[in-house]
This record gives sequence, C-alpha cells and structure tokens, in this order.
Amino acid sequence: MNQVVQYSQIDRTFGALADPTRRGVLERLGGGSATITELAEPFGISLTGMKKHVRVLEDAELVTTEKVGRTRVCSLGPRRLEDVEDWVETYRRMLDERLDRFGELLERRKESQDGQ
Amino acid sequence: MNQVVQYSQIDRTFGALADPTRRGVLERLGGGSATITELAEPFGISLTGMKKHVRVLEDAELVTTEKVGRTRVCSLGPRRLEDVEDWVETYRRMLDERLDRFGELLERRKESQDGQ
Repeated sequence: MNQVVQYSQIDRTFGALADPTRRGVLERLGGGSATITELAEPFGISLTGMKKHVRVLEDAELVTTEKVGRTRVCSLGPRRLEDVEDWVETYRRMLDERLDRFGELLERRKESQDGQ
Repeated sequence: MNQVVQYSQIDRTFGALADPTRRGVLERLGGGSATITELAEPFGISLTGMKKHVRVLEDAELVTTEKVGRTRVCSLGPRRLEDVEDWVETYRRMLDERLDRFGELLERRKESQDGQ
C-alpha cells in the first residue's frame, strides 16, 4: 500500500523555518510590526530579497502583511507551531524507545540484511 | 549593525523535515533499520528519488547509512532535535508575550507607520 504524499501546512512551516534570515525576521517581529525596509536593513539584504523571505513566511501563515499607504507592514501571523512541536515530540519519544530497544533493533537489522 | 547569516545545522534540520516523505522515512526507521529499496517501496518512488531524500537526511545527521554488501542500510542518526525544540519553544513564548502586550504593539505599529 502506497502512502499518499501531500504537501501541507507543516511542510511549508518547516521550510520557512529552514533559513536563519527568516527565523531572524520572526524574532524581530516578536518585538513589534515592521516595514520591509526596516526588516531588510539589519540583515544587509535587498528589499527584493526580503520581500521573497516575507512571502515564504506569509505562505506558511507565520507572518501577515498589510499595505499601508506606500509601505507594507509585516506582523507575526496566527500560527503557533503546535503541529511542528507535536511532530518533534513524537520523533523524540521514538528515539527514546529506540535506545531502550537497541538490542532488539540489532537483531531486526541482521534479519533485514539476511533477507536481501 | 548587520547580522551575519550563516547556514547551520538547524537550517539543514528544518529543511530536511520540510518534506512528508522524509518525515515518513524517519518514522519508518524508528521501527528499525531498512535498505533504500525497503524505504522506497511504500512511498511508490524510485530508488534514485529515495537516495536523494536519504542524502538530505544524512546531511542533517538525522539518518546514518552503511554499505553492507550491495545494499545500503539506513538507520536513525544521533540527532535529537534539541535545537529545533528550543527554537520553537522560544518562538511560542514570544507569541504568548505578544498577545499579552497587544495594545502596546498596536501603538508601536502606529508610530512605525507615522514615521515612514
């Protein structure tokens, strides 16, 4: 039975967080809203570059933007990363169980190799 | 002052987790080691496609592989995602504080807009 692979919100979230500039933007917006210009300046990147990062964060619903006159004001979005936390917690629990069953896993591994 | 942006282990980890097939591989390996062929089959993807996913997981140290005869056996790597958990927890704490200070933020936002 094949697993159906669908890209979803959690993929966009992990992808958005996989960049230090984008994580930095989220940390900056935690201190209050900012324009694209204000966000770009401390990172020393172009407005175009920052707009791309903000678009990725918007697609992941981590940031919302609002056009105000000639500027675009960015704020933290509503997402609270529960899905990311849940996944990471489940993974870590699995690692713990794995360490507990290390001997058993060595045995399975041997069987798997014999079966090739 | 510009922030120095350096790609690091946590970037590779978030990037590796941003794909449902790669998360599925980690969940599968939690049950025991597997060959590339065994990993590819349930996802209905090619061996070449699965090798690429495994390489991304290896670069993030989430998976280790070992050549055994003519097959490559994949196992969970040593990484325990503490950095990812720490970042997500810090971000969520910030969101909580932000909700508490909502009125103050509205004020800052107004000032930021007036200042443009």
